Amino acid sequence: MAKSHSKYIMERKLILISNDDGVHAPGLHRLVEAVSTLGDIVVVAPDGPRSGQSSAMTVNGPLRVIEHSEYIQAKVFSVTGTPVDCIKLAMNNILTRRPDLVLAGINHGSNAGVNILYSGTMGAVLEGCLQGIPAVGFSLLHHSMQADFTESMPIAKMIVEKVLADGLPHDVCLNVNFPAKVKIEGVKTVRAARSHWTEEYKEYVDPHGKPFYWLTGGLINEEPEATDTDLYWLDRNYATIVPSTPSQNAMDAMAIVNGLFDL
Amino acid sequence: MAKSHSKYIMERKLILISNDDGVHAPGLHRLVEAVSTLGDIVVVAPDGPRSGQSSAMTVNGPLRVIEHSEYIQAKVFSVTGTPVDCIKLAMNNILTRRPDLVLAGINHGSNAGVNILYSGTMGAVLEGCLQGIPAVGFSLLHHSMQADFTESMPIAKMIVEKVLADGLPHDVCLNVNFPAKVKIEGVKTVRAARSHWTEEYKEYVDPHGKPFYWLTGGLINEEPEATDTDLYWLDRNYATIVPSTPSQNAMDAMAIVNGLFDL
Repeated sequence: MAKSHSKYIMERKLILISNDDGVHAPGLHRLVEAVSTLGDIVVVAPDGPRSGQSSAMTVNGPLRVIEHSEYIQAKVFSVTGTPVDCIKLAMNNILTRRPDLVLAGINHGSNAGVNILYSGTMGAVLEGCLQGIPAVGFSLLHHSMQADFTESMPIAKMIVEKVLADGLPHDVCLNVNFPAKVKIEGVKTVRAARSHWTEEYKEYVDPHGKPFYWLTGGLINEEPEATDTDLYWLDRNYATIVPSTPSQNAMDAMAIVNGLFDL
Repeated sequence: MAKSHSKYIMERKLILISNDDGVHAPGLHRLVEAVSTLGDIVVVAPDGPRSGQSSAMTVNGPLRVIEHSEYIQAKVFSVTGTPVDCIKLAMNNILTRRPDLVLAGINHGSNAGVNILYSGTMGAVLEGCLQGIPAVGFSLLHHSMQADFTESMPIAKMIVEKVLADGLPHDVCLNVNFPAKVKIEGVKTVRAARSHWTEEYKEYVDPHGKPFYWLTGGLINEEPEATDTDLYWLDRNYATIVPSTPSQNAMDAMAIVNGLFDL
């Protein structure tokens, strides 16, 4: 019996969870709840909001790790850095074994279209992927801390179960977005729409007469008719799965660029 | 004569230059010098070092813009944010016309291999590319502020001349790295090597007995025999040009992932 118990322990999956809204964000707690029966959960998340942190890491300063009370049965740590710092520190200094899966989210706000490039949530996911671990990021198209994740949670669980069972192709992670509306029509595997932000800064004058700027603006879908994109299906209340990669090699352009420089 | 003078003014190229080492970094000044005859130069760079900032942007705070003295004939501004903030603010609030080219660097340190993902220099370049502007990042494999850019400068100028003349494919920018050694053997157009960082944190104890961590470690080339990568040729004292893209769609994996979820 002892042997079989030990085997059971060995076979428990280890799931590392991070985010960019910080260790206290409701979306993180909902993700822990959604997958809590699927393995041992360790949360390593920033100690506060780190939205828009992309794959930033803390190069020239110290990082601290704080242990919190368990949430459900998940161990919970916070880090005084970025989402990428969380994954790196978890892998190197916090976890006692290599995780089977890296998750991030559920983000309060969209990471569809071009947003993946700026997203700290997806920064954590890309970092997991780079380290050879299947990784999935989850985001809800609603910024509020009171956002309703009820419909997102079973879909997140379904996706995690499949990835734990079948893995993902090498160098590929998933960027999952849920529509803001409560009734989710279905799930689509698509690519990220070409898109950009517009009207990006509001200008202010401080009490001493000096100007400052604050980021704002809206996301423009540059290809609204394309039916194979995340922005298209999120608009129609579908959840979207975008296979994503940390590689930024433009392999299709190699011959053209080589020709340009005639080398 | 007035008409022809006006035509000349209209045809002057506008080159926007940023970096992640900050507005005072020697590598930035060397890049301005290298391309100063090729157009009107405007520098918009962080007010201090922002290494490892990737495509991070300042979402939840104010940004200030400071105008500095001209350098050679370049206008120089600094921003209290990230390299991406610099490009966005330049495009939206500083420049009076759309630039013909976005450059970043010359970075003090390598952006070869996986480093592109974390690089603030390449964050600025990817942002220019996203906005539809030809964009090139330059980096030298030497971290010192006393690094010697003498051999890098004419190669940077050659690359900028070709890109100004011929443009780049849509959604493609260039990540150029120069070897640290003074004698550069040539230039190669290649892909970024699959690579990762190892032994990533040094652990310390502060004067009050509490631990903290500091990023360190070395870059491991996972495919040292592959002759079509940047790390291979930089090791052999060649400069490397990597055609890069802000897109992180894993198009090759679309069918596999779609099959996984059987949607």
